[in-house]
Amino acid sequence: MEPGGVRDTYERLCEQLRGISRFAEVLGLLSWDEQTMMAPRSSDARGKQKAALSGALHEKMISQELGDLLDKLRAGENQRLIEAELNAYERANVRDAIRTYDRKVRMPAKLAEYEAELFSRAYRVWSEARKNNDFASWAPVLKEVVDHVRHVASITKPEMKPYDAAIDDYEREMSAERLAEIFGGLKKELQSLLNQIAEAQRTNPRKLPKELDNGEMWDVDKQAAFCKEISEKLGFDFSRGRLDVSVHPFTGGAGPDDVRITTRYSTENWVEGIAGTIHEVGHARYEQNRNPEYAALPVQEALSMGVHESQSLFWERCIGQSLEFWEWALPIARKYFPHLENVEAQDVYYRLNIVTPSLIRVDADEVTYPFHIILRFEIEMGLMDGSIDIQDLPKIWNEKMQHYLGVVPETDALGVLQDVHWTGSFGYFPSYTLGAMMAAQLYDAACREMRDLKTQVRSGEFAELNEWLASKIHRKGSLFSSLDMLLEDATGQPLNPEIFVEYLKAKYRGIYDLQF
Amino acid sequence: MEPGGVRDTYERLCEQLRGISRFAEVLGLLSWDEQTMMAPRSSDARGKQKAALSGALHEKMISQELGDLLDKLRAGENQRLIEAELNAYERANVRDAIRTYDRKVRMPAKLAEYEAELFSRAYRVWSEARKNNDFASWAPVLKEVVDHVRHVASITKPEMKPYDAAIDDYEREMSAERLAEIFGGLKKELQSLLNQIAEAQRTNPRKLPKELDNGEMWDVDKQAAFCKEISEKLGFDFSRGRLDVSVHPFTGGAGPDDVRITTRYSTENWVEGIAGTIHEVGHARYEQNRNPEYAALPVQEALSMGVHESQSLFWERCIGQSLEFWEWALPIARKYFPHLENVEAQDVYYRLNIVTPSLIRVDADEVTYPFHIILRFEIEMGLMDGSIDIQDLPKIWNEKMQHYLGVVPETDALGVLQDVHWTGSFGYFPSYTLGAMMAAQLYDAACREMRDLKTQVRSGEFAELNEWLASKIHRKGSLFSSLDMLLEDATGQPLNPEIFVEYLKAKYRGIYDLQF
Repeated sequence: MEPGGVRDTYERLCEQLRGISRFAEVLGLLSWDEQTMMAPRSSDARGKQKAALSGALHEKMISQELGDLLDKLRAGENQRLIEAELNAYERANVRDAIRTYDRKVRMPAKLAEYEAELFSRAYRVWSEARKNNDFASWAPVLKEVVDHVRHVASITKPEMKPYDAAIDDYEREMSAERLAEIFGGLKKELQSLLNQIAEAQRTNPRKLPKELDNGEMWDVDKQAAFCKEISEKLGFDFSRGRLDVSVHPFTGGAGPDDVRITTRYSTENWVEGIAGTIHEVGHARYEQNRNPEYAALPVQEALSMGVHESQSLFWERCIGQSLEFWEWALPIARKYFPHLENVEAQDVYYRLNIVTPSLIRVDADEVTYPFHIILRFEIEMGLMDGSIDIQDLPKIWNEKMQHYLGVVPETDALGVLQDVHWTGSFGYFPSYTLGAMMAAQLYDAACREMRDLKTQVRSGEFAELNEWLASKIHRKGSLFSSLDMLLEDATGQPLNPEIFVEYLKAKYRGIYDLQF
Repeated sequence: MEPGGVRDTYERLCEQLRGISRFAEVLGLLSWDEQTMMAPRSSDARGKQKAALSGALHEKMISQELGDLLDKLRAGENQRLIEAELNAYERANVRDAIRTYDRKVRMPAKLAEYEAELFSRAYRVWSEARKNNDFASWAPVLKEVVDHVRHVASITKPEMKPYDAAIDDYEREMSAERLAEIFGGLKKELQSLLNQIAEAQRTNPRKLPKELDNGEMWDVDKQAAFCKEISEKLGFDFSRGRLDVSVHPFTGGAGPDDVRITTRYSTENWVEGIAGTIHEVGHARYEQNRNPEYAALPVQEALSMGVHESQSLFWERCIGQSLEFWEWALPIARKYFPHLENVEAQDVYYRLNIVTPSLIRVDADEVTYPFHIILRFEIEMGLMDGSIDIQDLPKIWNEKMQHYLGVVPETDALGVLQDVHWTGSFGYFPSYTLGAMMAAQLYDAACREMRDLKTQVRSGEFAELNEWLASKIHRKGSLFSSLDMLLEDATGQPLNPEIFVEYLKAKYRGIYDLQF
């Protein structure tokens, strides 16, 4: 390339990439609207609009023009020039543009069409199967999904083992082998902690004020106003986003300047609304803080699902389920719910951190949650390497539930059929627990690096913490290519599951007066 | 072409046209969201998203593939086959696809870019000028807009005079000459009616119960619930649409299966909310009733702005401002506003039909409204043929206001600067009054054709009326190529302004006890 050629090619690449992002942002808005605003019988039309836009987006992502630019930038003889002329963020844009493009072009159009049809059919069949508690009707479609995921992996990521390829969609540079090692250590430690907690609960049960769970009193409009005030104080920027209600809470919208979070309110259980809101605010801060210098470019994007989950869990659990948080937030809650007058922050703290082995993943507490994930990870691994036969899934599921948590679902609907993920998102589950471990590690570092984080939380001061996370994680985006590199940069070491275990031990030692 | 060739080409054309519609629908949703939901600081990002999508839409609209298909279908030797193989709706699709394509391709990309920049700049300068009552700062930009509109007309519709070309964007096959004739007759008739009303108001002023305009009492949430109930009963289909609030009420959304209307509520003036809602319901019924057999194709679209306005005004004025409507609606209103207990339907009827010459078009009643339009039409004509110098506009405006309505604005902000239309929508104004005349003509026909329309309205029965409008107007879409043809089909004669005059005379004769 001539002098300046790299810069020029890079700028033309960015123009293409920004166009791609704008389309993706619009699809994000369509999806948000569908789940929050759209009338029920508009859904067929919405499907056609999304298909038209996705088709156009796909064409942009595999365009000849984009391919030609990337070919120039990946040519061996230009690497020295790239190193010299582009900074690290710019090089990350090139790296990720190549990564995405290669995977897209390797996927034949026919196969992508089949995938869209399969996943949509899988969703329908699974929904019905769960409703009717009918695993047999779901099994053949699950088989098709597993076969398809293996096939796609072999085509788009031929250098990886199938399950590694699936995991890589959600967690870059992670592998089943490493996860098996991490989860192997984790389950031993947590099993022991769980046993001690169960023993403490039996011998010394806690009593909570009945005002905390009085269904009659949790007016939905007041919950919404309370959640809005807390979101704002935690740092959610309402000048560039919204908070609404949807059946399943999510963070979405149309890019970092238009981030839309949702939650849901139950009149019987006030915890769900506020915990869900804080969780989504964590996701939203990551999105709203994306590096404005690289707007609409790959390096600005979240690194992985695990990192995203680390941000939501950091806020939901490390902050929102802490005693000091409720010392600050309870007086605010009392403005909306005067009947909390005689409730203490300590009561809410205990209420939020009850540990109970249960059947449903999404309802699990932070100690039992990893077992739900480990169980699914082990099953996914077995499905991908063929060592588990799909017909045996309900039996295996129930055995593992018994083994890890001592509870067994009475129906498959409450067991192996509970999650939507296997209708298309194979390899996603591990990210939840990777996120939890990463959150604890970041919290540990924040506690060490910031002047008395707990005092700040107790005073409702979140600015320094927000800036700490923004500089360590949010603005870094996809600069590094793995969770480990990002954590090493932020905390001085790659992912270290022991920090998570220590965090849990220290917390629940206090809550349950444990003797270790 | 070979046998079957026409059908095959037509089907391929439809596929292209449907893709275009889906993009336009998405742009509709982005625009709705911007005006109802979006946070203020998301607007830059939204601008970029819209630009990306509009760019892609433009490319689709001038694509080689589309051009080639249309070339086949317009070739002289194929006309006999087209006549034989395509039905009238299908031929209208071809006709309108050619019409739109030709105009698009004649518009050079550079000129379209300039237009986007000019109109956006014009909007900003006009907003500031209106705020500061500063016509001088607006004049040079208005000059640029006028010059541009003339230039575009000469390029895209070389067969038309410039103002005819501008009008044609909103009202197909209409001309300045015809409008001048229609408006010439109209103003004489209305002037005389207006004089008689003014005399009657002076000699015999009506007293209205003060409960009708008591600001304290018009709770916004209750107005919203009232408007929602009325919309539903008038036939707005909430399973395929929404009703929200925006600064300027509009009907938009994402196609006929996702129609979104907005209104606004004032605590001081309850009339605005309900009248605005009924107006938008009229537009919405047109959209929701678009012919499902030709989904996402040109023939399914509204024929013109005038026809669209005829539907909103039909409901707002002919129905929503009638005595029989309030005989039905007032008891419903009392559920929300118990203080209306002693108010009579007759009182509301008088309140809604007060005739007062005033400065602002959007606040005008149905008798004075046409004068606001005629004034603007005459000025537009003068600007387009060069006989009016922009510097003289304020003076001309005020003279015409004095002449037609006997009122003169104290500031240009309340006069020549009041409307947004000249920042880009030259030729739009006549559609308002064309719509009003058409509404009266349709109402006249409906009264003759339906079994006692007024009794039905009095009982809140709107099903037969809805179906009458759907079959005569809504499902016809753009089958006919002009308002006159559509009216001829629906009512037995082309646009006849005398029916409008008779409608007004009959109505206000009753209200003001006039002696003619």
